[in-house]
Amino acid sequence: MALIDIIKQRKSTRKYLDKPIAREDIIKCIEAARLSPSADNIQPWRFIVIDDAEYKKKFCAEVLTGIFRRTRFIEKAAVIVVLVAKTHLIVHRIGKRVVKTDVQLLDMGISGEHIVLQAQELGIGTCWINMFNPKRAKKFLNLSSNYRVISLIAMGYPAEGGTKDRRDLSLEDIMFFNKDSRHRL
Amino acid sequence: MALIDIIKQRKSTRKYLDKPIAREDIIKCIEAARLSPSADNIQPWRFIVIDDAEYKKKFCAEVLTGIFRRTRFIEKAAVIVVLVAKTHLIVHRIGKRVVKTDVQLLDMGISGEHIVLQAQELGIGTCWINMFNPKRAKKFLNLSSNYRVISLIAMGYPAEGGTKDRRDLSLEDIMFFNKDSRHRL
Repeated sequence: MALIDIIKQRKSTRKYLDKPIAREDIIKCIEAARLSPSADNIQPWRFIVIDDAEYKKKFCAEVLTGIFRRTRFIEKAAVIVVLVAKTHLIVHRIGKRVVKTDVQLLDMGISGEHIVLQAQELGIGTCWINMFNPKRAKKFLNLSSNYRVISLIAMGYPAEGGTKDRRDLSLEDIMFFNKDSRHRL
Repeated sequence: MALIDIIKQRKSTRKYLDKPIAREDIIKCIEAARLSPSADNIQPWRFIVIDDAEYKKKFCAEVLTGIFRRTRFIEKAAVIVVLVAKTHLIVHRIGKRVVKTDVQLLDMGISGEHIVLQAQELGIGTCWINMFNPKRAKKFLNLSSNYRVISLIAMGYPAEGGTKDRRDLSLEDIMFFNKDSRHRL
């Protein structure tokens, strides 16, 4: 399958079949993330894979309360991958100081998306989740101060009606050549 | 080609052949980025494609000075894609306030990596560049206050010796199941 077809098929999946994901396939997804690029090859990413039903339930009860209740649907996902970044890495601190960009987040976006695309190729739906309580997640997972919980990726085989079509901006809205952007952005 | 093979072949490319990239192929890469997921589907990404030799030279002279001189090699890349984010989008402000994560950067990492992977499938090498002067880039590109320059992706056909092997962490270093991480992170 061409990459563009994987990309076109990918839609955020919010309803899942009650069907586990084989460990073998989970590992394929993490392997895809493992080989992704990062600033100065620092590889800040760590992935905590939650596929134990009981543990998943407890995790969701802890981190998806209050204003985060609207992402509770991921409790029904077969797997939740917790994206954790190792902090205090010199390159990221320089990034923040010198270029004012939290480069670590770019790296985490990149590696997480490798998971998403690899899952899609395997027929597994995913949903990036930013709306959760990261402090509580860190505490629940008992992470030391060098680690930071960045995001979650829910994974599961899509149920009927589990995805909906997006409205995407057109190429003309987002792509500019050379000086073309000067009067439009 | 399977996705994992595209991922395995991808290495940051720092020396390029003196060979242009067809507009058609550039557009394929931006199209791949266009279809990537973003928080609440807000699609903050804008891509300024610099493939005009004169304009590229001026851009590099402006944004790759001083401490940023070490990324000057991208002047020799056939194309530089400037990753620009539309700011002041409510979802990102909420993200920063509520979850303390600059969600926009995750989105930009995700979409940029779609460019990188699509380029790789087409045999085009890439290199993510964070070390440049974003203020000067914004001024040079004449962007309004609603836009922020996040990163650059250099693109070009790899010259001999243009890539080097990485040392990657092992799966055991980065992947943990359920409670396995508790005494290791």
